[in-house]
Amino acid sequence: MLKRFLVPEEDRVFVREESVRNATETIFLEMGQSERDAEQSTDVLIESDLRGCESHGVSNMLRLYIDQYGRGELNPTPNVTTLRESAVSATWNADQALGIQVGPRAMELAIEKASETGIGAVAIQNCGHVGMLAYYPMMAIAHDMIGFCMVSAGGGLQVPVFGSEPAFGTNPVAWAAPADKHAPFVFDVATTQVAANKLMLTRRIGSKLEPGWITKLDGEPIMESIESPDYGGFRMLPFGGTRENGGHKGYGFATIVDIMAGILSGNGPGFIAGGLHHSQFVMAIKIDAFVDVDGFKADLDKLLEKLSSMTPVKGHERVYYAGLIEAEETVLRKREGIPYHREVVDWFNGISDELKLGFSLP
Amino acid sequence: MLKRFLVPEEDRVFVREESVRNATETIFLEMGQSERDAEQSTDVLIESDLRGCESHGVSNMLRLYIDQYGRGELNPTPNVTTLRESAVSATWNADQALGIQVGPRAMELAIEKASETGIGAVAIQNCGHVGMLAYYPMMAIAHDMIGFCMVSAGGGLQVPVFGSEPAFGTNPVAWAAPADKHAPFVFDVATTQVAANKLMLTRRIGSKLEPGWITKLDGEPIMESIESPDYGGFRMLPFGGTRENGGHKGYGFATIVDIMAGILSGNGPGFIAGGLHHSQFVMAIKIDAFVDVDGFKADLDKLLEKLSSMTPVKGHERVYYAGLIEAEETVLRKREGIPYHREVVDWFNGISDELKLGFSLP
Repeated sequence: MLKRFLVPEEDRVFVREESVRNATETIFLEMGQSERDAEQSTDVLIESDLRGCESHGVSNMLRLYIDQYGRGELNPTPNVTTLRESAVSATWNADQALGIQVGPRAMELAIEKASETGIGAVAIQNCGHVGMLAYYPMMAIAHDMIGFCMVSAGGGLQVPVFGSEPAFGTNPVAWAAPADKHAPFVFDVATTQVAANKLMLTRRIGSKLEPGWITKLDGEPIMESIESPDYGGFRMLPFGGTRENGGHKGYGFATIVDIMAGILSGNGPGFIAGGLHHSQFVMAIKIDAFVDVDGFKADLDKLLEKLSSMTPVKGHERVYYAGLIEAEETVLRKREGIPYHREVVDWFNGISDELKLGFSLP
Repeated sequence: MLKRFLVPEEDRVFVREESVRNATETIFLEMGQSERDAEQSTDVLIESDLRGCESHGVSNMLRLYIDQYGRGELNPTPNVTTLRESAVSATWNADQALGIQVGPRAMELAIEKASETGIGAVAIQNCGHVGMLAYYPMMAIAHDMIGFCMVSAGGGLQVPVFGSEPAFGTNPVAWAAPADKHAPFVFDVATTQVAANKLMLTRRIGSKLEPGWITKLDGEPIMESIESPDYGGFRMLPFGGTRENGGHKGYGFATIVDIMAGILSGNGPGFIAGGLHHSQFVMAIKIDAFVDVDGFKADLDKLLEKLSSMTPVKGHERVYYAGLIEAEETVLRKREGIPYHREVVDWFNGISDELKLGFSLP
């Protein structure tokens, strides 16, 4: 994550992983989730925070989820149904479960199918927010598989190249593969120039947006550095930005996501399904079906070694690959605690008092 | 394709599809390919030219292939061997066949497996240039499948974010899905800011490169508009360009490609395999395994209708989606002929004279 997204030092409160897990799980139980589901939902959020992906952790997401449960937009005890199934595939209706509650189960099934056949995939319609996408493919790498995941997230944010109105959500993609000695490759990006959650985060920490990140309401790109407008006051550009700079690539990947998650699951294109009915596609690919696992990992190590040991271009300290800083940050945060903004800690304790949940952070 | 890549009007010679097919096939036969393979290889090139993807058609590629056959770098009569196989997957050693010769066969096998199981994928090691990637997923859509394809193309061109030396080739990705009334979605991009072939093309037609497309040899991005330097005199940036503008996204996708095509096929990372030993990954996903095919196509039609009928932002005439202009261009070119640069036509006729091949264009 870029420095602009980090909590300023003077506002940081370090909280132990166990404490925030306990607090978060208590909140999900209070929302009506089962114990198993509350533990699972919590794990997706806390893994985000451990990896330094604050934009998708408890700070930004929990209060949104609570609001959605409060408005009846999420079903805490879903009856997830199987619409189609084969040896390699399944399609689920998530019955408006929170995505972080049902998504891990879907990846578990994809992994099970891949164990048996070589490849497994599950498409899910009708769920809520799916959280940090990296979580799902990371489940696959623990089984010597490559994993990937896509989420169609409505149609109200991202403007196609040359377009005057939005047609997609941030439509993120994540992909992961296991190495041996090196931290795994874990790639997780929005197909917009920046994840919507990160815009919220810039507001909390008082930083600015770059030129070419967002557009005016009529689709015209904003080419100066500004503070993030209110939700509803802007649109987002596909990654790449302008056409000359490759915005058609972000636009194309956003369309792929709408096809693989939205349309293939039967949820429909995001602009019709809307922002409350997300859809997800997860796939697990067994490495052993194609090539020797040890050889694969040794080869990936060679690539990751090449990248992470490369002399950086002047002005930079280091060359990273996707997943490297996040793995380092996880080690650090497991040891020293997670640095939340003091305002987030106050919010947790406020909720605890209000609902008599009995926890207190840090 | 951007206007800058088109052949200037005064240099255009229109050639009938059949004529250039015949000429190209004759050349491949002369290079030693079998009749079936020559027809197949030709089809990949001519489909590129019909779609307006000149960068990957006969103009740029044929003379390179002829040089490679001449130097013994390509095997015209490969003994393609199966290294692993399952109901959903296969890994092939292409015995240094031209990629456009062996790739279509691999996609045929992936489609066959997907017909039976729902998903099929083939990884190919040790092949030559794979041509226009869109060709392969387009094969899948004819069978009511979603197709995708990735190619690891050496390690000598693309510099990772903050890196001082190249680690990847252009590592392209293509993805396609069938609609009903609308032209199919067909997306095909390099993970660099621009395809290497397009740089060659700018030189032929005398146009310039944009800022942030390439770097100096030491990895420093060139931020002014310049003429394309000679091969070997520059490096390429991942799509997005600089880190602030999302270059880490192109870099991440380039890494995925190196993993899925290079490492999963056993070819190894591109930087070790080198520029002569490409690798490819193709996958076909049967729509029917997840959702009703007619419903899928109707939904994709709705999305493509939304995109292509949208009012454009001021300064632009139209909103496109990936594959739309190419489908329109194909209709036009099948009717009016393919507009080649006069220099390309002269080259064909020169080869015909030199090798006594007996054809004459246009």
